Amino acid sequence: MDTTKNPPKFKYKLTTAYDGTQYSGWQIQPNAISIQEIIQDKLEILLKRKATVVGAGRTDAGVHAMGQVAHFRHDEELDLFRILASLNGLLPRDIRVKKVEAVPEDFHARFSAINKEYHYHLNLNFVQDPFNRLYSWHLPEKINLDLLQECAQLFVGTHDFTSFANEAKAGAAARNPIRTIKRIEMIPEREGVRLEFEAGSFLYKMVRNLTGMIIEVAKGKRDLSEVSEILAAKDRRRAGRAAPAHGLFLVKVEYPKDKDEG
Amino acid sequence: MDTTKNPPKFKYKLTTAYDGTQYSGWQIQPNAISIQEIIQDKLEILLKRKATVVGAGRTDAGVHAMGQVAHFRHDEELDLFRILASLNGLLPRDIRVKKVEAVPEDFHARFSAINKEYHYHLNLNFVQDPFNRLYSWHLPEKINLDLLQECAQLFVGTHDFTSFANEAKAGAAARNPIRTIKRIEMIPEREGVRLEFEAGSFLYKMVRNLTGMIIEVAKGKRDLSEVSEILAAKDRRRAGRAAPAHGLFLVKVEYPKDKDEG
Repeated sequence: MDTTKNPPKFKYKLTTAYDGTQYSGWQIQPNAISIQEIIQDKLEILLKRKATVVGAGRTDAGVHAMGQVAHFRHDEELDLFRILASLNGLLPRDIRVKKVEAVPEDFHARFSAINKEYHYHLNLNFVQDPFNRLYSWHLPEKINLDLLQECAQLFVGTHDFTSFANEAKAGAAARNPIRTIKRIEMIPEREGVRLEFEAGSFLYKMVRNLTGMIIEVAKGKRDLSEVSEILAAKDRRRAGRAAPAHGLFLVKVEYPKDKDEG
Repeated sequence: MDTTKNPPKFKYKLTTAYDGTQYSGWQIQPNAISIQEIIQDKLEILLKRKATVVGAGRTDAGVHAMGQVAHFRHDEELDLFRILASLNGLLPRDIRVKKVEAVPEDFHARFSAINKEYHYHLNLNFVQDPFNRLYSWHLPEKINLDLLQECAQLFVGTHDFTSFANEAKAGAAARNPIRTIKRIEMIPEREGVRLEFEAGSFLYKMVRNLTGMIIEVAKGKRDLSEVSEILAAKDRRRAGRAAPAHGLFLVKVEYPKDKDEG
C-alpha cells in the first residue's frame, strides 16, 4: 500500500454507549442534536482536524445503546488509551466511549457488521420503579406472557418484513425487505421481561414495530393467527403501532473477528 | 375514642420511591420544588381538602429513595387501591407511591420508625455506564477495597458521630450525636460496590460524610488510624468531604410491625 498519498492511513473503531433520552437519535440531521454529531465534534477538537464518524446504523430519538459501534480514519497513529480517556473527558456523561481499537483498512462499522442485538425492556409492574421510567415500556395492564412468547417466535426465521418496516425517509432507495431473525428470547427481569432480538441486520423501526405487534397479541387485542396474514400483506398499515423508543437498547454489533474470538 | 370530634379519624401510610435528580430534596422549603410538596399537592387534589404529608426523614437534594415512608390523616375511610392508582396518575413519573396502607392512630412515619437502611453506590469502572451516571458516584481511580471494607467496619457500633454530622440548619436544636450503626456491608455490583448502612436513625448527612471518609481511606489519602482520632475530636472539620448526593438511596424504613412480620 502506498502510504505517502493523501487518504488517512489509520482506522479506529469506537464502541459507544449512550442514554438516548436527550437526543434526536444517532444520525446527524439539521436543527437537532444527534449523538453522532457530538462524538464527531469532540473528536475534531481532540484530533485538531475534520473527522467523520460512521456508525453501524442509526438509532432513533430516545433509543439507547450499550454497544453502538462507529469508525473514523486518521492520518497519524493514535494512543488508544489517550483517545478513550480524552474523548470521555470531553463528552457529556450520557454518551460514553467504552472502547477504542485500531482496525484494518477494510473495516467498516456498517458494512462489516454481521450480527446485531437489540433488547426491548417491558416493565410489567403495576407501579413502575421511577429509576426505570426512561428505560422500559410500562405496561401495567394484564399481559399474557405465554402469548407474548408464542407470538415472538412467529417472527424468528426468514421473512419479508415490509409490514414491520417504516420508510427510512422520503425518497430513500427501497431496500430488500427480507431479513432473517436468528433469535427472539424472552428473559425475565426484576420488573418484567426483556425481549432479545438477534439478526444480521434489521429494517428501519423493525424491532419497535415487532414489539408493538407482540404486545397487542399478548394483551389479547389481536389474534395470534393475524401475524402470518400481516406478514403476507406486506403493508405497514396492517401491523400495529410501534412500541415507544425509550424501551429499546442497541446492545451489540458484531464483526467477523468478534465471532472468531467468541 | 370519641370519633365525633374534629381531628381526622383515619391515618394512612405511604411507601414512596423517587428519583431525586430534579428535586431540592424531600422536605418542603421556600423557592424550591420538594418531593413532600408535590405528593402533598396531589393528595390535596385527590382528597379535595388540605393535607399534611409527614415523612420518615428528609433526604437531601439529589438523593434518591426506594422506600421513603410518609403518613397523612383523613376524616373519611379511603379505598387504598384507588388512592394508589390515582396518586400515581397525578404524580410525575419520577415520584411513585408503591404502597398505601391504613395504620393505627399512634403510627408516626418519623417517630415510630425503628430502623433505616441506606445504600451508597460506588461505580469503580474506568468508563461509567451512562445509565448509572445519576445513581452512583464514579470513582475511576484506584480504590483499595480491603481498606474500604476495613474502614467501614470502624464505624459499626455506638459512637458519637459529631465529626460526621452537618448542622441541619442554623438555629436547629442540638440533637444527641450518639448513634448505633448496626451494619455496614460492602456488596459487589455489576459496576462496582454498594455500601449498605443500617441504623435506628442517622444524623444529618451522616451516610454521605461517612462514605466520603471511607473513600479517602480507600484511596490512600488518609490513614485508617485517623478514624478513631476524628471520631474522638467531635469536630466536623476534621473529617473529609461528603460523598455526592446522587450515589445515595434511602432504601427502607422499618416499623415495629414490619419487624414482627419479618
